[in-house]
Amino acid sequence: MAASGLPFDDIRNLLRTMPGPDTAAAQRVAERDGILTKPPGALGRLEEIAEWLAMWSGRTPEISRPLVAIFAGNHGVTAQGVSPFPSEVTVQMVANFQAGGAAINQICIANDLGLKVFDLALDMPTGDISVEAAMDEKACAATMAYGMEAVAGGTDLLCIGEMGIGNTTIASALYFALFGGKAQEWVGPGTGADTAGIARKAEVIEQAVELHKDHLRDPLEVLRRLGGREFAAMAGAILAARMQRVPVIIDGFVATAAAAVLHAADPTALDHCLIGHVSAEPAHIKAIELLGKKPLLDLGMRLGEGTGAALAAGIVKSAALCHSGMATFDSAGVSNSDQE
Amino acid sequence: MAASGLPFDDIRNLLRTMPGPDTAAAQRVAERDGILTKPPGALGRLEEIAEWLAMWSGRTPEISRPLVAIFAGNHGVTAQGVSPFPSEVTVQMVANFQAGGAAINQICIANDLGLKVFDLALDMPTGDISVEAAMDEKACAATMAYGMEAVAGGTDLLCIGEMGIGNTTIASALYFALFGGKAQEWVGPGTGADTAGIARKAEVIEQAVELHKDHLRDPLEVLRRLGGREFAAMAGAILAARMQRVPVIIDGFVATAAAAVLHAADPTALDHCLIGHVSAEPAHIKAIELLGKKPLLDLGMRLGEGTGAALAAGIVKSAALCHSGMATFDSAGVSNSDQE
Repeated sequence: MAASGLPFDDIRNLLRTMPGPDTAAAQRVAERDGILTKPPGALGRLEEIAEWLAMWSGRTPEISRPLVAIFAGNHGVTAQGVSPFPSEVTVQMVANFQAGGAAINQICIANDLGLKVFDLALDMPTGDISVEAAMDEKACAATMAYGMEAVAGGTDLLCIGEMGIGNTTIASALYFALFGGKAQEWVGPGTGADTAGIARKAEVIEQAVELHKDHLRDPLEVLRRLGGREFAAMAGAILAARMQRVPVIIDGFVATAAAAVLHAADPTALDHCLIGHVSAEPAHIKAIELLGKKPLLDLGMRLGEGTGAALAAGIVKSAALCHSGMATFDSAGVSNSDQE
Repeated sequence: MAASGLPFDDIRNLLRTMPGPDTAAAQRVAERDGILTKPPGALGRLEEIAEWLAMWSGRTPEISRPLVAIFAGNHGVTAQGVSPFPSEVTVQMVANFQAGGAAINQICIANDLGLKVFDLALDMPTGDISVEAAMDEKACAATMAYGMEAVAGGTDLLCIGEMGIGNTTIASALYFALFGGKAQEWVGPGTGADTAGIARKAEVIEQAVELHKDHLRDPLEVLRRLGGREFAAMAGAILAARMQRVPVIIDGFVATAAAAVLHAADPTALDHCLIGHVSAEPAHIKAIELLGKKPLLDLGMRLGEGTGAALAAGIVKSAALCHSGMATFDSAGVSNSDQE
């Protein structure tokens, strides 16, 4: 970074230099797919996933080091009474992840996925977005850089998850700022807010967006003003994965909001990403559609932690193995369709 | 069986003595679920699956010996030109399953599932249903009994799949006979029939149902006249699993037709079953809804072989492990909601 540069300059530079799709690798997958022992198209989305893996990894689909990365942050906005759980639950749940007691731990075991937890200064909540910016530019850029470490260990499939009491309110604020509409459209029960709690969330994000309204044309400004540390870190991780050709599975309502910041900066920035699961949080499906995506799973979950992405990773692993492991009509001595 | 008994008598007797739900086991799961470290309901269908596993296994959810059983049969109806693939593909694909080269083999590896292939007299196709009954009662009952062997090895989750050139036509005939409507509503491309091929399938099942119309009030008669060996074996396996308290995941369009025979005999006969995946075969979703079910996955697949059930088994394993492996609020030292 030049001595005179602003903290976001490096991020903006990465966004300008993102690698595009490896269409040759995808084409090789499509060709091999046509001779595998099944009717053409019969594996549906599994075939699309195999092509997508090749397109964004640049090689034959293979998942040997899948990783779930959970980013945890705390939020000043909890002072506004937006969550039925107290803020200390964030650090307690991080301890639960580390002790192996959370849902995501079990799903990682069941699907043989690695798990890393990134806790982000949990004792220093970000600013209350309804009265000030969540972070300054330096803190936001540094947290994005920290999130980039998620791909440093050489994973070949990155699942993006999060934990943070109050962070469905932050996610709603980001969606409202990025996509517009009405505040009420973007809020929901989160961990269990009742009708009054949901109305309170709408008021809070309305107030926050009103406060910062003159600075929301730049998506990175949206992120630092209305976001939070786990959002910055997730955006950094997704961007770093793109640079290093690591396909990504994004988890639910909260993780998708971090991804939406990148999409606002460049509509192709999420082409290396799948949405793993559509949350029961009502606004998630709308956000997914605005990003031009189709979720892989719909199991009525609304937990975060990367649980939806991790379940989807099981499907993606199967897709990769079907492509690489299946016999061809010739090699298996199976007669192909007599019509084709 | 009494010396004077008919071959179906044993089956009818099993249908009369099916065990019901273990509501106490399900209640224990619901109670423990309420103290696990997550907001109530946040795992959505995974929570329902954990309760369902307890209800039908009679014990704490645990999947340690999951099995995919593939039943393969050949069909005289292929003489009517209903499939673009020749009948010899059935035995070729069975060899492919045994050599590990099919899609189902890869999905079993990815999800750590056992696999057993039951080939059912492939060199003796059943009768062409458009001109005669597929089987006599003795052959049908014997094949059902053979299918019951699928649970003999002590599995705790049985995935039901199949292979058989021409068997989407058989499945369509069974649905048409059991559910009524128009023949065209129940046919689709199968392995890849074109518009003319699909119309041919509708003609064939219409002719078959017309031929057997005076004998279709008894679902077991529907099975023996319009079914096939893999259908009889799948129905036997599903029924045997119920008797032995083994939860079942049913695969796609074809496997669901075998299940529909049992449902017609007793509407509670599939209460221990999930539908793993809704097929791209258009009539599958209608059949699933008529059975009162909701599929777990929707990935646009239409392959059979148990692939949809096996992918769903990965989800079910995760659901069981979440329930058994997660910490409670107390044990993890996590604060519960301050509203509840």
